[in-house]
Amino acid sequence: MQEIYFDNSSTTRVCREAADRVMEMMTENYGNPSSLHALGFRAERAMEEARAAVASSLGAETEEIFFTSGGTESDNLALFGAAHALKKRGNRIVTTQIEHPAVLNTMKRLEQEGFSVVYLKPDSFGRVGADSICAAVDRHTVLVSLMQVNNEVGSILPVEAAAEAIRACGAPALLHVDAVQAFGKLPLRPRETGIDLLSVSAHKIHGPKGAGALYVRRGVRLVPRACGGGQERNLRPGTESTPLIAGFGAAVRALPDPARERERMAALSAHCRAGLGEIPGVAFNSAPDALPYILNFSVPGIRAETMLHFLSDKGIYVSSGSACSKGRASHVLAAMGLPKERIDSALRLSFSRFSTEEETDRFAEALRQGVASLARRPL
Amino acid sequence: MQEIYFDNSSTTRVCREAADRVMEMMTENYGNPSSLHALGFRAERAMEEARAAVASSLGAETEEIFFTSGGTESDNLALFGAAHALKKRGNRIVTTQIEHPAVLNTMKRLEQEGFSVVYLKPDSFGRVGADSICAAVDRHTVLVSLMQVNNEVGSILPVEAAAEAIRACGAPALLHVDAVQAFGKLPLRPRETGIDLLSVSAHKIHGPKGAGALYVRRGVRLVPRACGGGQERNLRPGTESTPLIAGFGAAVRALPDPARERERMAALSAHCRAGLGEIPGVAFNSAPDALPYILNFSVPGIRAETMLHFLSDKGIYVSSGSACSKGRASHVLAAMGLPKERIDSALRLSFSRFSTEEETDRFAEALRQGVASLARRPL
Repeated sequence: MQEIYFDNSSTTRVCREAADRVMEMMTENYGNPSSLHALGFRAERAMEEARAAVASSLGAETEEIFFTSGGTESDNLALFGAAHALKKRGNRIVTTQIEHPAVLNTMKRLEQEGFSVVYLKPDSFGRVGADSICAAVDRHTVLVSLMQVNNEVGSILPVEAAAEAIRACGAPALLHVDAVQAFGKLPLRPRETGIDLLSVSAHKIHGPKGAGALYVRRGVRLVPRACGGGQERNLRPGTESTPLIAGFGAAVRALPDPARERERMAALSAHCRAGLGEIPGVAFNSAPDALPYILNFSVPGIRAETMLHFLSDKGIYVSSGSACSKGRASHVLAAMGLPKERIDSALRLSFSRFSTEEETDRFAEALRQGVASLARRPL
Repeated sequence: MQEIYFDNSSTTRVCREAADRVMEMMTENYGNPSSLHALGFRAERAMEEARAAVASSLGAETEEIFFTSGGTESDNLALFGAAHALKKRGNRIVTTQIEHPAVLNTMKRLEQEGFSVVYLKPDSFGRVGADSICAAVDRHTVLVSLMQVNNEVGSILPVEAAAEAIRACGAPALLHVDAVQAFGKLPLRPRETGIDLLSVSAHKIHGPKGAGALYVRRGVRLVPRACGGGQERNLRPGTESTPLIAGFGAAVRALPDPARERERMAALSAHCRAGLGEIPGVAFNSAPDALPYILNFSVPGIRAETMLHFLSDKGIYVSSGSACSKGRASHVLAAMGLPKERIDSALRLSFSRFSTEEETDRFAEALRQGVASLARRPL
């Protein structure tokens, strides 16, 4: 049985280039980059090559890239770091209802600390209007945090509008973008867009789990979150995971051109959508203009977990909501105003550059079987 | 040229068992442990096997082990988490002057937050007296943090005395032990010793960099430091690095019995000490009763960096102070009251179970050459 992995927004298989690099750094080039001997220097050089690769993919300077243990840590560092650095200049923060828990739960903590957080509501496809962002940002706003692409439905958020709103009202705000789902899939140029802080993760782009980065625009000052030995210019102390960092760099270098790849993915997604659309009852939760890597839909009447297990038994791996919410009802679909039955039956397909149209055909066939087999059962 | 790696307290080469496991988890068993399909379940099972291995090595329950990105994060989580959880019960914290920067710099931050921190002074070999701990702990003390083994000189700290002092005066204090340098080298039984929180790291025991764990005694409540998707029972959110965690577990399972291995290491260290003792000018900074994995000595008159580069050119890798302080004067040797010339010329050898007496002989010979060749140069 050939397995089909359509859960790439949860995590990806590490590509050969990255895996080999991790292996080399664990067993040969294993020095501590802080060590002042040849093995240390070699490890440091490998880390700086990876930093250059990440920087280059974002049109950034190498000094603007700080390695972390992943997207969650990048988000935490950005949000706490910015809010604490600017707390004397205002206490208003603007974000959305559909952010990742790494952002939303940090916002809750910041509210406990006295910040006032505005959560923008999306439309029924998970899109956030530029006008609502402009209306929310005022001159007491110290932080705006938007995801570039929503992880559950693939909606693309108008990050440029946030940058413009900050400029327009002269707010001291820093603009943070959680780009974990966009990295490698959309061309990202934080400096040109007016983004101050941008979070990315290795394991969503066929790099290893446990590595991420935070872009910090030159000149932006953050209060460090962790205390330790001064690594990453004091912003993220702790012995660097040089194997994961080098693997991250290799995964970035192996990325195809996002613009060209997106065309192929748009065709694949449209093909999949057409196939699924023929199955009675299927309702799409992702907008047609969503990032084509993510396709969310519901089969009302069949609980997502039930279908998910049916598919898993056939070696087909998809998600109900996001992996990070592990079985809890989706806060994203709820914010979109979908009825409970749609939310409880929502499945997320998430493709990668290794996904094929043939796989989407086999998926549609399996789903059709699932609908036929499961719809008859009492709920 | 056969390289000699005597910098194992900075980091270690990943052993074959661990490296193979990391590879498998990156390329085959690559699911997200939060995913509700077969690939997710397999990843979760691998992670729980690793948790059981770490727990077993500490005589702990699996529910008492929380995975982190390494020793620094474990220390931060333990110290902030305990201090913030107990801040209503007192504001006194007791630690030592010779802790790792991950502890010392966290203490500085806690001082800024209003805690009062007592830093105990070591003796001239980096040992901290049980009596000084007993005298420092009072009934307003909410946290005591001691390293089990000092990373620069190998002194073993009287952790039991701290547990006893807390009990004796009825303090609400939690006892945190940074066991990064002791793990796998001393038998550790936190529950029996009265330790509440204990930090360990994978990359000091031939596991991969980027993984660590915090032992949290059952019933102890910590305020989580990071906010996110609820992983590690909300104490450490973020997609788990299952490759590193599984590799960590494999490295733990590959550890020899600490008690038996320590005998072999004591013989190796004594052999090395005897060889170095014959070289004129060599002065030992590690006590004879230090953990034999670490041997710190000075060659007054020759700057450590100079000797370190001389040795590195011969493929011999040692450290000046700890890797984490990258060239800065050692705060540990300074706290021990050593004169500047001793501090500036201090080298640290740190062995692993793969080190051999033959390597120590070759090291002694190279050092002798270094002394002859470098002592003549003007400083």
